[in-house]
Amino acid sequence: MEKECIIVLSGGMDSTTLLYDYKDEIAIALTFDYGSNHNAREIECARIHCERLGIEHIVIPLDFMHKYFHSSLLDGADAIPEGHYADDNMRSTVVPFRNGIMLAVACGMAESRGLKKVLIANHSGDHAVYPDCRAAFIDAMSEAMQAGTYDRISILAPYTGKDKTFIAARGAELGVDFSLTYSCYKGRERHCGRCGTCVERREAFRIAGIPDHTLYEE
Amino acid sequence: MEKECIIVLSGGMDSTTLLYDYKDEIAIALTFDYGSNHNAREIECARIHCERLGIEHIVIPLDFMHKYFHSSLLDGADAIPEGHYADDNMRSTVVPFRNGIMLAVACGMAESRGLKKVLIANHSGDHAVYPDCRAAFIDAMSEAMQAGTYDRISILAPYTGKDKTFIAARGAELGVDFSLTYSCYKGRERHCGRCGTCVERREAFRIAGIPDHTLYEE
Repeated sequence: MEKECIIVLSGGMDSTTLLYDYKDEIAIALTFDYGSNHNAREIECARIHCERLGIEHIVIPLDFMHKYFHSSLLDGADAIPEGHYADDNMRSTVVPFRNGIMLAVACGMAESRGLKKVLIANHSGDHAVYPDCRAAFIDAMSEAMQAGTYDRISILAPYTGKDKTFIAARGAELGVDFSLTYSCYKGRERHCGRCGTCVERREAFRIAGIPDHTLYEE
Repeated sequence: MEKECIIVLSGGMDSTTLLYDYKDEIAIALTFDYGSNHNAREIECARIHCERLGIEHIVIPLDFMHKYFHSSLLDGADAIPEGHYADDNMRSTVVPFRNGIMLAVACGMAESRGLKKVLIANHSGDHAVYPDCRAAFIDAMSEAMQAGTYDRISILAPYTGKDKTFIAARGAELGVDFSLTYSCYKGRERHCGRCGTCVERREAFRIAGIPDHTLYEE
């Protein structure tokens, strides 16, 4: 089978699970360095998994996001709110249209390299706070990519209707080493355990009944 | 009236005309430096017009396009084909999903700055060769941007159904100094007069009955 996918790979548990899930169809993994608090740790995790799977890994710097965009995710660990994703205060962690930008770049890269599909690991847990993780966005963006390319490149987002618990279970099934994935928005050596993404990560392992080997600060 | 637009401004005659056309509604002009042969000259033109109009001008470098994307537009003057846009050989000048990438970045910047609309100067003369200039793409991308942002940011592309002759006439009406716009894909000091965009530029002035003050090589 010819590999015809490019994946948007952050190095968190969702996209890493997707990487293993579709490894036989992925030609390139793209990781974006947009200056978030946790980018450096995420990128290192992404690199390790691509190396293990023999998948070409490209890191794309998007310095303008850190320079011009407003988001607590770009403003250092102290700016990150604690609590659950469903809480109002999580809105400060939104990086405006981040998925739109990453998908657009991945689409251009796909057309440049003769690939047909862009994989992304958005899931239902993100929908409450991040508009660019919802099915309506993914569908419209896939439509735009098809209309805007000769090869009618489209999006494959198989976790859109699934939650993070499903992903934890799927990853465990695929043998993903989750201790080599990074989630925490504060970006420190250990996961803080209290920000939105840490809360969701712990909850996913607990509900899925998967041992959580993450090192938390507390 | 509150200014609620951000414009994708290349520094060519189309987007410069659009800049003057909507100057009272534009808060920010974004120019992208993606390493094309003619980027440096275009950017300087864009800068001059923004300065004249008192509009904030931001240049966003997108080095990855030059590094990873395939297009004759990124490969030096000698790679540029000569002839008319409608010709098959113009396809080599396509930069994959360029408008998708620029619109996505402009959308994120708009949401970061509380703006509501992204202006772009695609027109019907581009439709034959560039899929990401067609109405179907612009409509779908606008849909994606609305779905992917809290403020339902949308695209305003008033020249989509117009041709370059209309734009030349409109620019002349608005007093645009077209000698301070740059089109040529070869990116040399003078316009070559023979590449697709030069052919279209000359034709537009001729049919619109506007004097063409462009300095051509021949």
